[in-house]
Amino acid sequence: MKLNQFARQPRTVAQEIQELQTIKFIPSNWSKWQPNQALEKLLIKSFPEVIADCVFEKLTNLAATTKQNAAQYCQNDSVSATAFYNLYFQLLGFQPEQDFSLAEPQKIKASLTYPQFEHTILTTADLIHGWYQLLIARTTNGQTFLDELTARGYFQALVEDPQTPRPLIFNGKAQAVFDTRKLIHEVVYVESDQDSDHDGQRDLLKAEIIRPAESNSLPVPALYTASPYNQGTNDRLGSQLTHNVNVPLTVKKTQSQTVAGNPVQLTQAPARPDPQSNQAPQESFGASFNYRLNDYFLARGFAVVYAAGIGTKDSQGLRTCGDPEETRSTTAIIEWLDQKRRAFTSPQVQHTTTASWCNQHIAMTGRSYLGTLAIAAATTGVSGLKTIISEAAISSWYDYYREHGLVVAPGGFPGEDSDVLAVETYSQQQNYGQYLKVKKTWHQQLQSLTHGQERSTGNYTDFWEHRNYRHQLEQVQADIIMVHGLNDWNVKPKQVYKLWQRLQSLPITTKLILHQGPHIYINNFRSLDFPEMMNLWLTYKLYDCDNQAAQILPTVLIQDNVQTETWHQQDSWPQNPQQTKSYTFQHHGLQDDGQVSISEIEQFQDQLPPAKFQFYTHNLKQWEKDLSQVKASPLEKNRLLYQSQPLKQDLILDGRPEVRLRVASNQNLGLISVRLLDYGHYQRLGSLPQTLKTQAYDLGYHYQTEDLKEYQLNPQATEYQLITLGHLNLQNRQELTRVDPVEAGKFYDLSLLLQPTHYHLTPGHKLVLIVYATDFAMTIRGNQNLNYQIDLAHSQLILPYY
Amino acid sequence: MKLNQFARQPRTVAQEIQELQTIKFIPSNWSKWQPNQALEKLLIKSFPEVIADCVFEKLTNLAATTKQNAAQYCQNDSVSATAFYNLYFQLLGFQPEQDFSLAEPQKIKASLTYPQFEHTILTTADLIHGWYQLLIARTTNGQTFLDELTARGYFQALVEDPQTPRPLIFNGKAQAVFDTRKLIHEVVYVESDQDSDHDGQRDLLKAEIIRPAESNSLPVPALYTASPYNQGTNDRLGSQLTHNVNVPLTVKKTQSQTVAGNPVQLTQAPARPDPQSNQAPQESFGASFNYRLNDYFLARGFAVVYAAGIGTKDSQGLRTCGDPEETRSTTAIIEWLDQKRRAFTSPQVQHTTTASWCNQHIAMTGRSYLGTLAIAAATTGVSGLKTIISEAAISSWYDYYREHGLVVAPGGFPGEDSDVLAVETYSQQQNYGQYLKVKKTWHQQLQSLTHGQERSTGNYTDFWEHRNYRHQLEQVQADIIMVHGLNDWNVKPKQVYKLWQRLQSLPITTKLILHQGPHIYINNFRSLDFPEMMNLWLTYKLYDCDNQAAQILPTVLIQDNVQTETWHQQDSWPQNPQQTKSYTFQHHGLQDDGQVSISEIEQFQDQLPPAKFQFYTHNLKQWEKDLSQVKASPLEKNRLLYQSQPLKQDLILDGRPEVRLRVASNQNLGLISVRLLDYGHYQRLGSLPQTLKTQAYDLGYHYQTEDLKEYQLNPQATEYQLITLGHLNLQNRQELTRVDPVEAGKFYDLSLLLQPTHYHLTPGHKLVLIVYATDFAMTIRGNQNLNYQIDLAHSQLILPYY
Repeated sequence: MKLNQFARQPRTVAQEIQELQTIKFIPSNWSKWQPNQALEKLLIKSFPEVIADCVFEKLTNLAATTKQNAAQYCQNDSVSATAFYNLYFQLLGFQPEQDFSLAEPQKIKASLTYPQFEHTILTTADLIHGWYQLLIARTTNGQTFLDELTARGYFQALVEDPQTPRPLIFNGKAQAVFDTRKLIHEVVYVESDQDSDHDGQRDLLKAEIIRPAESNSLPVPALYTASPYNQGTNDRLGSQLTHNVNVPLTVKKTQSQTVAGNPVQLTQAPARPDPQSNQAPQESFGASFNYRLNDYFLARGFAVVYAAGIGTKDSQGLRTCGDPEETRSTTAIIEWLDQKRRAFTSPQVQHTTTASWCNQHIAMTGRSYLGTLAIAAATTGVSGLKTIISEAAISSWYDYYREHGLVVAPGGFPGEDSDVLAVETYSQQQNYGQYLKVKKTWHQQLQSLTHGQERSTGNYTDFWEHRNYRHQLEQVQADIIMVHGLNDWNVKPKQVYKLWQRLQSLPITTKLILHQGPHIYINNFRSLDFPEMMNLWLTYKLYDCDNQAAQILPTVLIQDNVQTETWHQQDSWPQNPQQTKSYTFQHHGLQDDGQVSISEIEQFQDQLPPAKFQFYTHNLKQWEKDLSQVKASPLEKNRLLYQSQPLKQDLILDGRPEVRLRVASNQNLGLISVRLLDYGHYQRLGSLPQTLKTQAYDLGYHYQTEDLKEYQLNPQATEYQLITLGHLNLQNRQELTRVDPVEAGKFYDLSLLLQPTHYHLTPGHKLVLIVYATDFAMTIRGNQNLNYQIDLAHSQLILPYY
Repeated sequence: MKLNQFARQPRTVAQEIQELQTIKFIPSNWSKWQPNQALEKLLIKSFPEVIADCVFEKLTNLAATTKQNAAQYCQNDSVSATAFYNLYFQLLGFQPEQDFSLAEPQKIKASLTYPQFEHTILTTADLIHGWYQLLIARTTNGQTFLDELTARGYFQALVEDPQTPRPLIFNGKAQAVFDTRKLIHEVVYVESDQDSDHDGQRDLLKAEIIRPAESNSLPVPALYTASPYNQGTNDRLGSQLTHNVNVPLTVKKTQSQTVAGNPVQLTQAPARPDPQSNQAPQESFGASFNYRLNDYFLARGFAVVYAAGIGTKDSQGLRTCGDPEETRSTTAIIEWLDQKRRAFTSPQVQHTTTASWCNQHIAMTGRSYLGTLAIAAATTGVSGLKTIISEAAISSWYDYYREHGLVVAPGGFPGEDSDVLAVETYSQQQNYGQYLKVKKTWHQQLQSLTHGQERSTGNYTDFWEHRNYRHQLEQVQADIIMVHGLNDWNVKPKQVYKLWQRLQSLPITTKLILHQGPHIYINNFRSLDFPEMMNLWLTYKLYDCDNQAAQILPTVLIQDNVQTETWHQQDSWPQNPQQTKSYTFQHHGLQDDGQVSISEIEQFQDQLPPAKFQFYTHNLKQWEKDLSQVKASPLEKNRLLYQSQPLKQDLILDGRPEVRLRVASNQNLGLISVRLLDYGHYQRLGSLPQTLKTQAYDLGYHYQTEDLKEYQLNPQATEYQLITLGHLNLQNRQELTRVDPVEAGKFYDLSLLLQPTHYHLTPGHKLVLIVYATDFAMTIRGNQNLNYQIDLAHSQLILPYY
């Protein structure tokens, strides 16, 4: 077991003592204690659930040595380091004689941090230091011991004491001294500038607030999650609109520039008249979907705000899927929190209401579309937004629904497009009484999305330029933490890679966490102290606490794909952008010895017999398996496959692989897809984290819980794993924004940049590169009579590595 | 969508009005309202989250007709049934123009209950009746509309009002008027009679109590969940002790009776001296695993008690896995709740503490081992235990770890046995300071379990007789609700079938729910109102409320395996015990036309080549797939397979299938396994319910949530599904408790009763019976040179059906 911790703040002994006194773990006269007295008192404090004189019995539950329990041991004259470690490990959840031996505890079979002492017989000061280190150490349940004590009631006395300093900072992180039994739930209607549904009125946007009651007297920061999903979704309507992907690839109009450069027109409306008065909110709310990381922070003195944006239930306006209007509706909420915009108590607009409980320090959180809107908001430079934590977020919608001039779906969602997602999230329709009024406008809006996204070409047009947040980065003021799964084929890694790259030149702090998951949250992994990292960060950014978070947190943190529970730090991604390795193509082979490629033309056909084609359209997993099957694949004629020799040493791919091909199509159009596989019969990480223990991760005291999860090795060896992939329209071979003609039979040179990666290959593994055309899981599927030739002598694979 | 409801209490209009007044939904002067006024007032009450005069705006969100929203509609003179239905369906979460048309709402494309009216223009009384029906109807989120309003804050005013009647009953069910923000968490140590760890002291047993603060003045019932897991488990130690199942079947000693009939010896100890005084509990607790059904009841005026029993962390005694000592430790908690036994505030036994908050009405809840202990407790007839809800429970431990004289593992756990489970649940060891004292005694206990379970024979001995709760049923006083998965191959359906059968002669009420799941909870299915059924039941049993629960709840309720969201009621299980259908064996065929079997001997061998054998031991799913593959199976020589003609009409198997075989082994021992499959390329229900919506099922107001789930059809057709199976040791062919010799080559007649089932086969499906020996997933795996012959003329399959 590896209990990694990246959010520990280094403290001097004096600071440790000060902090222990602040949380009332030790009194001011601790130095009068004898070591055995100190041990007893520290142990007793570690059983906060026992509310009277019965606590001594709890000490008998711990073994101090092979002979004595802790209660007996505290009667001795001295305290040994060995006994301390025995207690330390037991309190963290390790089992004597299974995880460690009571005789030699430091030989513990687990990776974790524990204090080192100069003496074998400990002083009272040693014990105090040791206990501070214990409180900030992670238990086998993946939370700090202090957080475990919190879940067992440690802070209840402080919660109920109005004199408790709030926030209460321990080791740089805000502690759970806010009363989660008294959370206030409020709804307000923020008035934006714009009138996106063209009814002559500014859009009103509903925001749901959850905040500690303590914020009535002490303003707190706000964590704002903009979630277009959280007022409901129209799943059936979305399915109905989902596009047929079994359509042919067509010849596009030749164009030297597909972006016209027209600006977005926002519809403005005059402000409403001044209302009668300012009031407290008049509406509450009950059931809602809560991001558990937000819940964790509610207990620690942060408010949480959920808003779904224009066109969602109880909000006005229309869904636009990623354009500046949506961004404006997202930042309107921040402006209200920052006290620079009005909100009303109801859509009747009779009373305004202010966020007087907010300290004007705001962060945004959330994954996928939620994280996307955090990026959108950050690119406006809106005041008050101090930082965002964007998880698995889109930084350009073109890269979500298109690739290199092709319609390429997010993995798992063939036929989805911006209009489909707009319908899915148009929960305003669920207020059918309101919808009766706006129906016609909405249908026009939808048609304009369907038209604008231009599925017929896949071109990068103004429509997509307006949905590319990376072109407004110079305005960013907020510091940005990015989290992304290296196996996220829904929101693909290019989204975070390009964002990360372009943010590096800005005078802001950026951090990046890359995990081995697909499109998931990572706030409940045992091997990573993600909530504590975010706590250190948000305590720094939103409570202005000088805790050195920017220095302490790793710049780039990457989960290893070979070793479980292992996270590496890097200075950047890629670590060595210049270092690459080239492979030339042989017949079925990949050579990395600098040998010249052989002079050979190889070819594959794209078309499948109709029955086979139909089968694969309904069995995407089988298609993927057949495509990736190295020997005797049913798709052997429909791909070219190049296999390297087994690796003789470790190879860490790090960055964006490139495939250069000289290719010809038998028609005046074509598309090329490429997959790079890690090949060989080996045990690999599972594709999803396993639940280690349900409800084991406590977010506070008698409050919410999370299941504890961790990536484990698959019990069985697998044949291969996808490392990365890419797709390209031959008509866009020169540039994304340029459409060139293709002549049948003529060879063209192209460079295809694959999705960026970080992938560790150990000796024995092989690299396999597959060149094919129709990607059943992602591209359109015309099943056209297309044949492709590859000139091996002029093709190569270029891998960034270290 | 089918929103089935089995917990609706029929009420007269007068009763409905009375109840609506009790929950303050309507005032006493309601009859003065004009219909449009009534509609407006009822609608306004349906938006409890709006706490001031802004509520009217909410009415604009609902469409009353194709032209008017509800706010506008309330200005009309009259109220039509059509408008009522439009509002009714919208409030339940259905979408206009998708699920139903505003013009003709009653053509709604969903199955649910809604009120019928005599008029097309409604009276105020009609509307009141309609709204009562709305409140008890289930929404598309799978809870009643009143429970949805609860989650949105409806009951908060009543929660805070000390005058509110408690419990507050609506439609026979207790409502959420207890304050979940003020739950009390307490720990007590119950003193049992026995001294199972032989230290001269009576065992003290820790119990964790969660109860509404209101119970301080108003005693409430207790839901008690006895969970040996909830103080932690020793997973690694369990794995280490797991038995090797790759061991040969051996010849047993011939015995006419394997049960000796010796009684269990319980070790008693004298009571401790009288303590100083009686006190309130002095210990609380934080983190714990909570069964969400219990949480639901906490909000509704029931206390919840968790206890893990002898040998678990913080409790004394030793784990025994199912014997009377464990049962005694389970009932000790009930006796304390019933105020017939002492508990102490701590293991220091200085103060007793009483359950004065408990109304001495106790139920037990929980699944698997938890439900098992509920059965165990019920069989003692312990006073105070009014009912149990036992889910997926073991009624005889022999049937969990053995079958017909063979070691047969629970599916998924080969090599597990009573000693392994004892170690797994011996969480006392995690208090290593305590464990140091009891280590030796524990090792003796463990050895005695390993010896007593007698894996070498698989015989039914005293050890198992003492762990068969079905032999003490005559003592049962509690009414029993049983829940079981028809695809539960862990705790197999025989456990509930035999219990159900034998309970029928007792003067108690029994109910049975059979679902299509494996070993799962069913408290969050959209298609079944399980929480409300249990609420009706427990309100009746524990609050002595005369709500006709015993008459209203179906006796037997069975989920259909063909139609999604469909539950059938039966009077018993099986419905027609006498009605059976016989199939004779042909070469590869099953005949049901009364034709005589052909005179043929068929044979199969059990042994596999070592590599193949090794492969299957590590790939149980592949083994199962290969065994069940009708054509060209790699295991063709290792089984006999008999396939019926495609069914011409529906066939519902209902009860316990029997296979009669005339069989010979080539050695003086042998085992026979049988699987019955539903065969054919069809869409079937998924093996697990799908999550429809996370956190969607609210258990109270700003409280806990559950994910909403439902069984859906697999997107792809599958080839087969397992219906039932069985295993038998040839030496136990005559009787379970008798061991007969087997002569090599000699034919014996045997009858093998398979696991009971309820299985719906539609026309076109075939039945497939597979006869084989080693079951890689369940039996021991000797890979011996065994060959079996079956005499087809004297073999048949007998199916109970209707």
